[in-house]
Amino acid sequence: MKVAVLGSSGAMGRFFASYFVARGDEVVGYDLSPPDHPVKGLTLARSTKEAAERADIVLVAVPMPKTLAVVRRVSRHLRKGSTLIEISSVKGNSLRPLRLAVSLTGARLLSIHPLFGPAARRVGMKFCVIGGRSDIASARRLFPRSVLIPMSQQGHDRAMAYVLSLVQLTNLAFLSTIAKGMGLEQFGRAASPIASAQLSVARATLSQDPSLFSSIQTLNPYARETLSSMVGELTRLQGLLAKNDSKGLQRSYEGTSKRQSRSELQGSLRAVYSLV
Amino acid sequence: MKVAVLGSSGAMGRFFASYFVARGDEVVGYDLSPPDHPVKGLTLARSTKEAAERADIVLVAVPMPKTLAVVRRVSRHLRKGSTLIEISSVKGNSLRPLRLAVSLTGARLLSIHPLFGPAARRVGMKFCVIGGRSDIASARRLFPRSVLIPMSQQGHDRAMAYVLSLVQLTNLAFLSTIAKGMGLEQFGRAASPIASAQLSVARATLSQDPSLFSSIQTLNPYARETLSSMVGELTRLQGLLAKNDSKGLQRSYEGTSKRQSRSELQGSLRAVYSLV
Repeated sequence: MKVAVLGSSGAMGRFFASYFVARGDEVVGYDLSPPDHPVKGLTLARSTKEAAERADIVLVAVPMPKTLAVVRRVSRHLRKGSTLIEISSVKGNSLRPLRLAVSLTGARLLSIHPLFGPAARRVGMKFCVIGGRSDIASARRLFPRSVLIPMSQQGHDRAMAYVLSLVQLTNLAFLSTIAKGMGLEQFGRAASPIASAQLSVARATLSQDPSLFSSIQTLNPYARETLSSMVGELTRLQGLLAKNDSKGLQRSYEGTSKRQSRSELQGSLRAVYSLV
Repeated sequence: MKVAVLGSSGAMGRFFASYFVARGDEVVGYDLSPPDHPVKGLTLARSTKEAAERADIVLVAVPMPKTLAVVRRVSRHLRKGSTLIEISSVKGNSLRPLRLAVSLTGARLLSIHPLFGPAARRVGMKFCVIGGRSDIASARRLFPRSVLIPMSQQGHDRAMAYVLSLVQLTNLAFLSTIAKGMGLEQFGRAASPIASAQLSVARATLSQDPSLFSSIQTLNPYARETLSSMVGELTRLQGLLAKNDSKGLQRSYEGTSKRQSRSELQGSLRAVYSLV
C-alpha cells in the first residue's frame, strides 16, 4: 500500500512512518521542518500534494490545532476511496468539519487516538477508534495486533479528560508543590518505593511536548469539570485533616479502597515495587 | 544477639522478625493477637516483659498511636546497654518522651523509619535515621547493606509530609475522582501507559493499612501545609484552564519540566513504559 505521513518529522509522525515502512508499505512523508534524523525507508515529498495524491492512506500527525487546516489543504488531493487518518488526542468539535472536508472528495476519515506516546514499542499499541464496526475493521486491517477500543466522540473526550488531562494536571501540580517545597532531589532521596514510582510517573508526564499538553487541556471540553472534581476531593480531605478527623480520613481511605479487589491492590503494589 | 520484636504479628513486625531470624539472631516476639501464620524461627513470649528482659535489641512495631504507651510499659524491663528501636512514620512530639522513657533504664533509643512497606525484598531496604553519627553507626551494624539517610526529627517529618502524606492524599483524591466519574474499570481500559502506571501507583497507596494512613496524615504537623500547597497549585492551574490560557498552561508545564534534566525525564518515561 502507499502511505503518506503528513508531519513526518514529528515524534508521532516518525513513529507511524517507521511502523508502515516495517510493514512493507511504500511510505512518503511531508513536513515543514526537515527531520532531525531521517526515518529509514521513508521517501520525502516536496509538498502535501505530492505526498498525498497517490496514497491509499494519508496519516495526519501535525499539532492538534493545525489538524483541520492541514486536512482541508490536503483534501483536494486525496484519491477517491483512500483513507485519511487523524490521530488527535481530543476529538471535540473538529471531527464533524474533518469528516466533511474528507468526504467531499470521496475519501474516508478514520479517526483514531493512539493511547501511547512515540516511546512505545510497537507490540503494545492501543487505540481508541471513533465510530462503528467499519471503522474498527479498517483500524484492524492497519494495526492487526493492537488493542482497539471503540468509542463515541463524546465518550472519547470524556474519558481523555481523566486519562490525559487529569493525570497531567495532577502530576504537574504535584511536581511544582515538591519543587517549591522540599525540592525534587531531596524528595527522590527520601522516597519510599511508592513515592519513587509516583515521582517517575510525574516526570514521565513532563517528558512530553508542552504544546500538546496545553492542547489536551484547553481543547477538551470535559477537562475543567474533571479538574474541579479532583480539587473538590482534595478540599474535602483537607477539611477532614483540618479537623484532625482520623476516623473520617480512615473512612475515606477504606471507602475508595473497597471499590477495588484485594488482588488488584496487591498486584499494583508488586508492580510498583518492581519499578524501583 | 537476642532480639525482641513487640508487635510481632503485624506486617512490619513480621518483616523484621524474619530479617533478624535470617541474620542468625535469637528472636522472640510478642503480640496481643496471635499471628495469622507463624514466622519461621520466631519464639513467642507470653508477655512484653518475657520478650524484652534478656534482649540486646527490642524493636517496637506497634501501631503509631500506641508506641509511647508500649515503650513506657517495656522500659522497666530493658537491659542496661540494650537498644530499643522505634520505627514510626512520624516522629512528631513523641520522640522526646520516648527517649526519656528509654534512657531512664540505661538503655538507648534508636529512632529509624523504614522507607518501605512489608512487601519490600530485604535487599532494597532504606531507612531514615534520626540523630547523629552514633545512631547511623548502630543502624549500620543492624542493617549493613541498607541505605541510611540521617535526618533531624523535624527534617524527617517535613520530608514525610511530601513523601507519605502528600502522595497518599493525592492518590486517594485521584482515585475517588475517577471512581465517581468515569469509573475505575473504564479508566484502566482506556489508559495510556502513563495513566496506567498512575493507576497502579494510586492502587498501591490504597493497599496499606487504613489506620496507618490516618496516623500519617493527622500526626504529621506538616501534612496540612503540604496539602494546602498542592491545592494551591491545582487551583492556579484551574484558573488558567478557566481562562483558556494555553500560553500560561504551557509556561507552567515548561517551568516545572525545566527544573529537571532531559535524561531524568526520559529515564522516567522508559521506566513507566516498562511497567505496563
